[in-house]
Amino acid sequence: MKQSHKKNIAIIGVGLIGGSFALRLHEKKLAAQIFGVEPAPEHARQALELELVDHICTLDTAIREAEVLILTIPVNNICDMLPGIMNKIRPDQIVLDAGSTKASIIDSIRDHPKRKRFVATHPMWGTEYSGPSAAVPHAFQSKSVVLCDKEDSDPDAIEWVEYMYTKIGMRLLAMSAQEHDLHTAYISHISHITSFALANTVLAKEQQANTIFELASSGFESTVRLAKSNPGMWLPILQQNKVNIIEVLEEHITQLNAFKRAIEAEQTEELLQLILKANQIKKILK
Amino acid sequence: MKQSHKKNIAIIGVGLIGGSFALRLHEKKLAAQIFGVEPAPEHARQALELELVDHICTLDTAIREAEVLILTIPVNNICDMLPGIMNKIRPDQIVLDAGSTKASIIDSIRDHPKRKRFVATHPMWGTEYSGPSAAVPHAFQSKSVVLCDKEDSDPDAIEWVEYMYTKIGMRLLAMSAQEHDLHTAYISHISHITSFALANTVLAKEQQANTIFELASSGFESTVRLAKSNPGMWLPILQQNKVNIIEVLEEHITQLNAFKRAIEAEQTEELLQLILKANQIKKILK
Repeated sequence: MKQSHKKNIAIIGVGLIGGSFALRLHEKKLAAQIFGVEPAPEHARQALELELVDHICTLDTAIREAEVLILTIPVNNICDMLPGIMNKIRPDQIVLDAGSTKASIIDSIRDHPKRKRFVATHPMWGTEYSGPSAAVPHAFQSKSVVLCDKEDSDPDAIEWVEYMYTKIGMRLLAMSAQEHDLHTAYISHISHITSFALANTVLAKEQQANTIFELASSGFESTVRLAKSNPGMWLPILQQNKVNIIEVLEEHITQLNAFKRAIEAEQTEELLQLILKANQIKKILK
Repeated sequence: MKQSHKKNIAIIGVGLIGGSFALRLHEKKLAAQIFGVEPAPEHARQALELELVDHICTLDTAIREAEVLILTIPVNNICDMLPGIMNKIRPDQIVLDAGSTKASIIDSIRDHPKRKRFVATHPMWGTEYSGPSAAVPHAFQSKSVVLCDKEDSDPDAIEWVEYMYTKIGMRLLAMSAQEHDLHTAYISHISHITSFALANTVLAKEQQANTIFELASSGFESTVRLAKSNPGMWLPILQQNKVNIIEVLEEHITQLNAFKRAIEAEQTEELLQLILKANQIKKILK
């Protein structure tokens, strides 16, 4: 595919994800100008200071100036703002989001006359940090991006979005929003809940903060790392993907109870089998 | 403290931990000769090939030749072998272990006449890999090591062991075996159980291995990493620290149920508070 020109791109929400997008779009020469929409004054200031965006502007200015709008705000805000944005865009503009849930977001504009200008995406990348200062240069590289319900978007919009994600080093996957929300409940959302719950377990029982600090091995640090994640981003994800998350949480509690039973009743063979089964994750993740 | 000479050191069990000890002891010029006792022929061959040890020998030869013996075998094997080793050592030899539980190990020689030649230690370092090929050069660096029940060891034995751990870059901590086993249940053992259970949750529900591979973000990988851990090492740890681990598992399941309830009943404020509480781990771990 030939791309004749760089595009003017608006990033709605210049935090960890939006800021990292900005860095990659500049680096891969995909953007002529980047317009940042960022209501938090301190984040807006940082976004300019870190040269993530060329301009900080209002949403209306962004819609007027940009050919592509990327929504990198919490998923509840995407649902709230997306219909209004779709109302205002011209027929040649492209809107995409990078939210971690997909069904609720798509539902928010299901019957919108300009639905086909929207591309629902989820780049599977993030860190436990937040804000523009958390943006990093090599974000997204070698990770997967999921495009959902592609048939409901215009081919030219899909084409540019796939071109952009390929340029920034991502592997393209396609699936329905329902499939996406089910798989991410297992492969991403549950990890955050177990990490939050692990932090709360340790903080509830281990009264000496110093002991946690002194004894924390890299194993503990890696399982509890996600507990630092931003509630503004994660609370609405857990709420929007409620049905899938409750199902996976129930399975996870069942699995933990199996360990508890095997340890409590000193069932060595049963405990061994539980660990050997878990070890099979080695075959899938290097 | 002046150390007049390098010591002959025996490493009982040349795997991840024993092999990493060997690398650091060589590097820090602490060892004249390293004698490896390793019953698995393939591991013994690798230990020589990787030049981790100078000799592979029997336990009796190791006891005859070495001034210091370091036990880096699973904690059940330590309990089984330690009394026999203590029977055979001379009054000037030092025996230490690096096991992840401490009360059971100390109990195994509680009334032994040579108890004071033993130093109970737990260097808080490890990876999810195993065997001599998993040994790494900068192991232990900047991590903590716990010495337990120091008053039950001879001062010269403690002095050398602290000297050795300081040389390889570890921070010294001292506590009772009971305190150690309680704290490690919270800060290390539970992380392994949550990781094993998370792997089993995903493997039970996610039938498409390819989807796990494709969608796995770094967040999932870090929470599930420990699920690759060796059952030979971890099964006896979970069994020996049963009482503490059951207590922490119950608390962890309670915490997970709190998340489940808040998500299920759509209690936004309650869910926010659970996440904000978990975020406090940021204050303790950078």
